[in-house]
Amino acid sequence: MASLFYYLEYEMIKTAVVGATGYSGLELIRILLTHPQVKLTVITSRSQPGIAISEIFPALKNRTNLITESLIPAAIAEKADIVFTALPHGASMDVVNSLVEQNMKVIDLSADFRFRDQKVYTEWYGEHKAPLLLDKAVYGLPELNRAEIKSATLVGNPGCYPTSAILPLLPLLKEKVIDDKTVVINSASGVTGAGRSASTGNIFCEVNESFKPYKVGEHRHTPEIEEALKSSSGSEIKVTFTPHLAPMNRGILSTVTANLKEGMSTSKILNILKGFYEHEPFVRICPEGVYPDTSDVRGSNYCDIGVKVDERTGRVVIMSALDNLVKGAAGQAVQNMNLMSGLGEDAGLRHIPISI
Amino acid sequence: MASLFYYLEYEMIKTAVVGATGYSGLELIRILLTHPQVKLTVITSRSQPGIAISEIFPALKNRTNLITESLIPAAIAEKADIVFTALPHGASMDVVNSLVEQNMKVIDLSADFRFRDQKVYTEWYGEHKAPLLLDKAVYGLPELNRAEIKSATLVGNPGCYPTSAILPLLPLLKEKVIDDKTVVINSASGVTGAGRSASTGNIFCEVNESFKPYKVGEHRHTPEIEEALKSSSGSEIKVTFTPHLAPMNRGILSTVTANLKEGMSTSKILNILKGFYEHEPFVRICPEGVYPDTSDVRGSNYCDIGVKVDERTGRVVIMSALDNLVKGAAGQAVQNMNLMSGLGEDAGLRHIPISI
Amino acid sequence: MASLFYYLEYEMIKTAVVGATGYSGLELIRILLTHPQVKLTVITSRSQPGIAISEIFPALKNRTNLITESLIPAAIAEKADIVFTALPHGASMDVVNSLVEQNMKVIDLSADFRFRDQKVYTEWYGEHKAPLLLDKAVYGLPELNRAEIKSATLVGNPGCYPTSAILPLLPLLKEKVIDDKTVVINSASGVTGAGRSASTGNIFCEVNESFKPYKVGEHRHTPEIEEALKSSSGSEIKVTFTPHLAPMNRGILSTVTANLKEGMSTSKILNILKGFYEHEPFVRICPEGVYPDTSDVRGSNYCDIGVKVDERTGRVVIMSALDNLVKGAAGQAVQNMNLMSGLGEDAGLRHIPISI
Amino acid sequence: MASLFYYLEYEMIKTAVVGATGYSGLELIRILLTHPQVKLTVITSRSQPGIAISEIFPALKNRTNLITESLIPAAIAEKADIVFTALPHGASMDVVNSLVEQNMKVIDLSADFRFRDQKVYTEWYGEHKAPLLLDKAVYGLPELNRAEIKSATLVGNPGCYPTSAILPLLPLLKEKVIDDKTVVINSASGVTGAGRSASTGNIFCEVNESFKPYKVGEHRHTPEIEEALKSSSGSEIKVTFTPHLAPMNRGILSTVTANLKEGMSTSKILNILKGFYEHEPFVRICPEGVYPDTSDVRGSNYCDIGVKVDERTGRVVIMSALDNLVKGAAGQAVQNMNLMSGLGEDAGLRHIPISI
Repeated sequence: MASLFYYLEYEMIKTAVVGATGYSGLELIRILLTHPQVKLTVITSRSQPGIAISEIFPALKNRTNLITESLIPAAIAEKADIVFTALPHGASMDVVNSLVEQNMKVIDLSADFRFRDQKVYTEWYGEHKAPLLLDKAVYGLPELNRAEIKSATLVGNPGCYPTSAILPLLPLLKEKVIDDKTVVINSASGVTGAGRSASTGNIFCEVNESFKPYKVGEHRHTPEIEEALKSSSGSEIKVTFTPHLAPMNRGILSTVTANLKEGMSTSKILNILKGFYEHEPFVRICPEGVYPDTSDVRGSNYCDIGVKVDERTGRVVIMSALDNLVKGAAGQAVQNMNLMSGLGEDAGLRHIPISI
Repeated sequence: MASLFYYLEYEMIKTAVVGATGYSGLELIRILLTHPQVKLTVITSRSQPGIAISEIFPALKNRTNLITESLIPAAIAEKADIVFTALPHGASMDVVNSLVEQNMKVIDLSADFRFRDQKVYTEWYGEHKAPLLLDKAVYGLPELNRAEIKSATLVGNPGCYPTSAILPLLPLLKEKVIDDKTVVINSASGVTGAGRSASTGNIFCEVNESFKPYKVGEHRHTPEIEEALKSSSGSEIKVTFTPHLAPMNRGILSTVTANLKEGMSTSKILNILKGFYEHEPFVRICPEGVYPDTSDVRGSNYCDIGVKVDERTGRVVIMSALDNLVKGAAGQAVQNMNLMSGLGEDAGLRHIPISI
Repeated sequence: MASLFYYLEYEMIKTAVVGATGYSGLELIRILLTHPQVKLTVITSRSQPGIAISEIFPALKNRTNLITESLIPAAIAEKADIVFTALPHGASMDVVNSLVEQNMKVIDLSADFRFRDQKVYTEWYGEHKAPLLLDKAVYGLPELNRAEIKSATLVGNPGCYPTSAILPLLPLLKEKVIDDKTVVINSASGVTGAGRSASTGNIFCEVNESFKPYKVGEHRHTPEIEEALKSSSGSEIKVTFTPHLAPMNRGILSTVTANLKEGMSTSKILNILKGFYEHEPFVRICPEGVYPDTSDVRGSNYCDIGVKVDERTGRVVIMSALDNLVKGAAGQAVQNMNLMSGLGEDAGLRHIPISI
Repeated sequence: MASLFYYLEYEMIKTAVVGATGYSGLELIRILLTHPQVKLTVITSRSQPGIAISEIFPALKNRTNLITESLIPAAIAEKADIVFTALPHGASMDVVNSLVEQNMKVIDLSADFRFRDQKVYTEWYGEHKAPLLLDKAVYGLPELNRAEIKSATLVGNPGCYPTSAILPLLPLLKEKVIDDKTVVINSASGVTGAGRSASTGNIFCEVNESFKPYKVGEHRHTPEIEEALKSSSGSEIKVTFTPHLAPMNRGILSTVTANLKEGMSTSKILNILKGFYEHEPFVRICPEGVYPDTSDVRGSNYCDIGVKVDERTGRVVIMSALDNLVKGAAGQAVQNMNLMSGLGEDAGLRHIPISI
């Protein structure tokens, strides 16, 4: 057996996580440490450099001796092949640029490389400081862009809400069964979506026993949803997107409503979805009469989708659930890494949801 | 001062709660015990008769010596002037009929007397066993029917979701600013909405850290919303209503989306709402840029409403928050009682929300 | 009736809240705004002066027009008779000193005036800057010090944990039924106990689904418990106190264990407690076999106490539950105000617990 | 590589889960389905036979086609080598007896085979119907009984509370540093500990925002703790054990207090623990000043232990955290299976805790 393990060790992909002390960073570490073909070699932190990550996150005790480092692109490039950047948008583009210059493959979890159209980025996020990289970057939704991702060197990892909204809509827009002028998206997210920076708004007592909308009509994930849908359906789409904050740690549930172009049964639409996602490892279609639940995907890379046609109104209601830190961030990033590295797409991502 | 208190005691309205051991029953008791012009004289329970209510609900310890009784209409009529019936739909109509025959004023918290149109009831709930009472019954939403409620002897107290959906829509339909063919309602409710009967589905661990839709396209509150809106706007309305379960005890947040007939600013719509609800004691309009939060109404009879126009899509998003057990059930019932009894509409209902 | 209300208005006590934007400040406002004999005339905030409090806390919308002011003792003295200071310990003593100099009655919710023995304060909290006031100050636990509180001008309002630990222990120490060398106190608190200052530690996701001890063997409430018990039992007492953080907003549950001096039944001990607290408006004793639950006191000024003798080990387990923001802070402060002002002790404090 | 996988397949241990639809059953399935050397071949359910388990638990969708079967010992024996019985105590003994007669290795998660002393079982649980098996059974706490477990054919898997209480106490009793007459144990458990049978007491709204003690002085885990401690320390021990219910799904935090025989520093005690658990794969000792948190072990098989000496009182406070469904039930059961089967002790149990 010795030779076998030698062989495996030899094949291990060396990875780095930039921004290791946020929630996406922690989730990347959790996934990468048990990925059978990956070795995590570098983690960085601007705010807490030089500290054992297991001291910052005691959950990692006895599992890694890694110490947070300052961010030095050349040093990272020496020790890793692929790097995940989990920094706030705006802060990410410079770093990514330096890492690309070091000839590293980069998967960026911020919004900085999700848009092909620089104008859209500028309008919603502000000036882009590395616009030349936008052409190079691939939007990292495997169910939409698998081929491009495989050969990409820079991936803009999708936002959590967009992943949850695009996956249910894609097949219906492609099949042209819904009127794309009538798409209304309501989503509820767990609080990890707000990140690990303390503010009055995310204190336990302010959020617990509370349910509320926020950034109504102006959430920055709106144009990301629209651009992905346009690229798939071929026509301009404007959606009304209303995000809400739910009192739980993880999970996004999106409820999408749209007018059907013509009468169609729930089972007919389920068949379209089943056909479209037949070979996808991480999209699961609920049987008729069953709807997705964030708890059924918790801790896993799955996106569950359910459907109900409201015959009284001629609308379809499509619902999706995913874990915002996994399929909505770190898990999808590792899925992209697997594709970019020629590994099995689900390698290291076979976690069964912890539903209770 | 002695004469004053004698006078007050003399004026106390004697009330009964039928179905005291459910969540609505408990909330009625909580409100009535501190209502300055009410005396709670009888409580009944089918499942647990003959037990001190403070033994069933230790929160009531030292506050009342009431013991649950079996339901005997004549006995109730002897001791009370007004009765609240908090029984499941279907079980309520017979009881209400008997109580009305005793010449009691009745406020029924089930669905049994919410509909004028018997056909609608039959279609969604099943056979109605007291159809002759339907004409007599008034739909107990004071913001819609105040005058009728004042002179009513039987009130069908609105459902929790309908209250949360009707209040934001009423003014906009009356003013004809939205296209009534485009109304999409998404609501999230706390778990008290599912009642106090144990089932696997409402075990703590099944609901905690979970967010999910249920009864999609077929929730029985749908026709109730439609009937009330029709009565106010004058035309048939069909809405798509998707309820969700959120991991919290109390609260409903409804997010209503509709196409604007013509371009209109957020502040313009806020002004319509402010005008419409100017003299309402329990409807509060949020300032522009602020949205309702279930925690800001918890334990109170308020319904908070906020608005945002999504100019990109020509839609308006109207959001409301209320406590499903108060404005969505027991509080609204007491508000109706106040109206039916000539008391101040907010008597006994001045609870300030416990937001944390 | 006009003369009556004129009379009542004339009698209204004018109160001020210093530190209105913390959780204790908010809870004071919630209670004072519905107190029938109180008018809240001034609120101050260091961090957010000049803002409508209903903008900071939308729960207060339509209930008060008060605007936060900067803290100017003379200005407060002009408008109020009694002031509640809800500032962090250390910051409070200077302010209290100035307010006392303005001849105001002060109820201080910090730790600064809870100790008679300046050395103890210095050892656990640091230097005291207003030591001359310590003799003047009365420890504001009505069940222990009612007479002194009635004539006090400065009250040090008890800590939340101490209130929960002292109330169950007092009667047993007075009756000398437990060995005072064996007292072990374990408490669990909701997260409002940590205050409204944002830090990574109180982000929703860090606390939710988490239960943990903190400040083990060194929590500053330890000497406060010991001093109160000593003053009542007459002998030095050292307790082991271990606080824990529980994933909920409100509530403290303390579980106190001690060796019985001699064999004694649960009902015998319950009788001692019932006798001791017979006339107390806010202490409720649970029947044998029933134990306190934080949800049964939520939002109210009650402290519930239950008992079980563990005959196998010769120990008694005494448990108490209270709402840390009410009986553990703002409610007890208002109880003290009532006593200091000659009002009914439970005036404005008749809230029935919101148990669900 | 083909030969390698053939070899691995050949070596796969075939396992069965009896009682698959409870929380322990589900957790066993979650762990076993990703165990690299195990094949789950049979699952049974008394209440829901003949249903795809992924229909009962949608979290398992696309991960297994297993269908619940009725419990027929001979049929199980045909398809599996080792069986996990996850039934209520009392119901388990007959089933275990039949399975042992089929020459199967059995790991029983109920209390039925945890006691060597039949009298103790009878006193706390009632009559034992398979007393002859008690001698054969090994108490399945690997840190205490590893050698016996390796050669056992029947293991009584420890209770969740006992595991959390025994692990911190074992080393201190063995080293005789604490007075075994002074042991007080306070524990808080998540609600999965109450099982998956619906009752009013475990409805979401009854438990959420609630913290309470239960079964004070009479919880059946008490004698189990005492028997294990006695077997290790050599002398009779009586403990006062008070369990509490905390509003979270998973996790037990036990806080153990005991008098030190002589003065000793926190670091000295930590060293004893570190020495004792040096080679244990699933016990982690917290650094001085850091205490365990249920969230740091969630979803994993770890038990974290922290210590603080309270020098003022001469007591030591030892705290432990574990996931009641993993190290407290299913994980420990799989750890036992690994030992009984000659596999690596941590095979299939390398889950990193999901701390947020």
